Amino acid sequence: MAIIEPRTLKGFRDFLPSSAAVRQRIVATITKTYESFGYLPLETPALEYADVLTGKYGDEGEKLMYRFRDQGGRDVALRYDLTVPLARVIAQYPELPKPFRRYQIAPVWRAENTQKGRFREFTQCDFDIVGASSIVADAEVVQVIAAALTNLGIAKFEVRFNSRKVLNGLLDRAGISQEQWLPSLRALDKWQKIGVDGVREQLSSFLPKEQTDAIMKLLPKEGEAFFTWSKRVSSEMIKSPVGKDGWREVNRLYELLQSTADNPKTFVVDPLLARGLDYYTGTIIEAVLTEKPEFGSVFGGGRYDTLIGQFIGKDLPAVGASAGLDRLVAALEELRALPESRTSTKVLVTLMDESLTDETVKLANALRSNGVAVEIYPEPTRLDKQLKYADKLNIPVAIMYGSQEQEEGMVTVKELATKGQKKVPREQLPETIQRIVLR
Amino acid sequence: MAIIEPRTLKGFRDFLPSSAAVRQRIVATITKTYESFGYLPLETPALEYADVLTGKYGDEGEKLMYRFRDQGGRDVALRYDLTVPLARVIAQYPELPKPFRRYQIAPVWRAENTQKGRFREFTQCDFDIVGASSIVADAEVVQVIAAALTNLGIAKFEVRFNSRKVLNGLLDRAGISQEQWLPSLRALDKWQKIGVDGVREQLSSFLPKEQTDAIMKLLPKEGEAFFTWSKRVSSEMIKSPVGKDGWREVNRLYELLQSTADNPKTFVVDPLLARGLDYYTGTIIEAVLTEKPEFGSVFGGGRYDTLIGQFIGKDLPAVGASAGLDRLVAALEELRALPESRTSTKVLVTLMDESLTDETVKLANALRSNGVAVEIYPEPTRLDKQLKYADKLNIPVAIMYGSQEQEEGMVTVKELATKGQKKVPREQLPETIQRIVLR
Repeated sequence: MAIIEPRTLKGFRDFLPSSAAVRQRIVATITKTYESFGYLPLETPALEYADVLTGKYGDEGEKLMYRFRDQGGRDVALRYDLTVPLARVIAQYPELPKPFRRYQIAPVWRAENTQKGRFREFTQCDFDIVGASSIVADAEVVQVIAAALTNLGIAKFEVRFNSRKVLNGLLDRAGISQEQWLPSLRALDKWQKIGVDGVREQLSSFLPKEQTDAIMKLLPKEGEAFFTWSKRVSSEMIKSPVGKDGWREVNRLYELLQSTADNPKTFVVDPLLARGLDYYTGTIIEAVLTEKPEFGSVFGGGRYDTLIGQFIGKDLPAVGASAGLDRLVAALEELRALPESRTSTKVLVTLMDESLTDETVKLANALRSNGVAVEIYPEPTRLDKQLKYADKLNIPVAIMYGSQEQEEGMVTVKELATKGQKKVPREQLPETIQRIVLR
Repeated sequence: MAIIEPRTLKGFRDFLPSSAAVRQRIVATITKTYESFGYLPLETPALEYADVLTGKYGDEGEKLMYRFRDQGGRDVALRYDLTVPLARVIAQYPELPKPFRRYQIAPVWRAENTQKGRFREFTQCDFDIVGASSIVADAEVVQVIAAALTNLGIAKFEVRFNSRKVLNGLLDRAGISQEQWLPSLRALDKWQKIGVDGVREQLSSFLPKEQTDAIMKLLPKEGEAFFTWSKRVSSEMIKSPVGKDGWREVNRLYELLQSTADNPKTFVVDPLLARGLDYYTGTIIEAVLTEKPEFGSVFGGGRYDTLIGQFIGKDLPAVGASAGLDRLVAALEELRALPESRTSTKVLVTLMDESLTDETVKLANALRSNGVAVEIYPEPTRLDKQLKYADKLNIPVAIMYGSQEQEEGMVTVKELATKGQKKVPREQLPETIQRIVLR
């Protein structure tokens, strides 16, 4: 038989135990944070009818969708995010009590260009509250993000927010027609990444010069202080009704956060924050690490009051946010805040002598029933090989039980870090081990 | 815009919070059990190159694979189980220390006939030990299964085992040619489900009458005691070298389990146990609930010493088992041993008065920083509506903070089960709540 080359698809990854264990711990922290605010778990399928997913992510997004015909000829696609499946769930089960808070931490699939360092399978950590239109819900979303980052051990971050209405007001005042709002927003959103000239170039590819100029005036001038700029921009936007409405909401959100948060400096209004997705209608939220701004946003989200309406025919308000697990892991690694990658196994029970197999298995069982994670080396190979294995896996303790120990009724306990070893009576083994591993 | 009908694909399911929470708890128990034996987490992609997966599941299996061309024209498929991806990982990362114990709890996809009550997306809970050929590893797999079922609160179960070698020996003695062994095994494996006549019918569809008769003689006769039958069958199989070898292994496994297990009656040799998969080479394992045999096997597995060789060109021994999460959940439900579906949220902070929003958010924050999972009702709607919501979600406590409470410096605490309520000073709220929710 021909040998098959073992390989993964481009943009897809294996997480071997050391990194999988770290990811699990981060997910556990995020889950606990979400649950502390009343969010409950939801699971949706990886595959959906394609028409459930299309028409929500823009043309660019749709091209990246893994879409195919199944055995029954159905037009199906792998989920592209977790928000659209949530919208479908809300529509499909009208009996779900509202406000409905749910979280979902699961992989999504996009056939991204891997040359940009992007992955085609990645895990999103979403939480959303559906059926609440008040600013209390928007403030909660900001607060959950701050709590999650804090619980992950990240001290320095900012949660920035804005409203799509604010931006729409600005574009309205600049005389841009409504169908050009979304591409204009996307260009504006990138100004810190691609610079002022980059934004101008993108805008002029689809807007006449005077409209491009009108938008460019909204960007901060060289050396202009944040406060001056913010004042200049806001005085412009409140001349438009939608902009005025948005600015009022952003300010109410800011006040609520300032008066209730532990660390109010963390929350910042950014009047040009837009985010790329089609479906946002109000508040826009993004979290960045102030020490590592190059990571971009580690959490992003906002309000989408019309998305669910695509399934039920009438608007239902919703707001939420999401973290990309990979970016969080990378950021924590860079900040040296990654949880330690350590095997959960505390003891290797070596197998010294095949004729003592049964007794050796019993020793392992005794430790395990005392709550210690124990593994047994399954072959009676050379002891140094067995101990080297324990070292490689960072298992802190090895125990040995050979014919001599059997005669004496003892067990040898070795700590791998210090190489120190001692013999203890067999019946004292569990308490000896517990003293070592709890130390 | 046309409304899109919200719906899931046939064979695919949403797990709404009440069932998703139960599934999470079961997964946590299984994870903890696996880790207590030294198994470590592994994550592999949902999509693989199709040639990595093909040639391992038989023709029937391959027809059920979700296989398509991706945007780059690659022939790809959704994973069909977690064992073949593990074999690929072992081959791709030769540096992984052996014995390699890993677990993976993740969905797999098969385009099954849904009329048989099967799902097309379902979660498997796999654990395997790679690089160990000794019977100690086989015994461990049996023991892990027993521990997982015990930890899930299932008292009455049997772990049955056998060896493919035993069955091959039997078929050898019956004069069956080797290419007919696998279909013959599959027919034999079903004798308890489809009965003696069913087995005969299946066998005669591809075997001549005398060979069918020879196999049928191996089945227990009407009224034949297990011990008599087992002795009769074993005296037959040890006449073949491969059968003798297998019978010796099965007996050694049995002895080891009898001498080391807490509850040795749980472990039973079943000389006709076969399981359907192509790749098993030695020990075969299956767990059944003695009170609910109709659920079939809740854990299944075995030894597959040649599968990894398809990627590396030489055999590497491996043994493991897997539980289907759905079947476990269904079995626990039937046994009334399902963990309670209860929201993790302990307190609903009602919003009584819009002008008190900030103060109400602060109350929720104070409880949360005392470690209580708290949600806030985000709109100042009618109080009875808010309390009804708490009832629906089984949130045990609601707190009310209106203008009167503000004047008095008090908070009203209501227990939803008893409808009893009392006012407590604001600063005593956290300890009052903790006393109630810990009670």
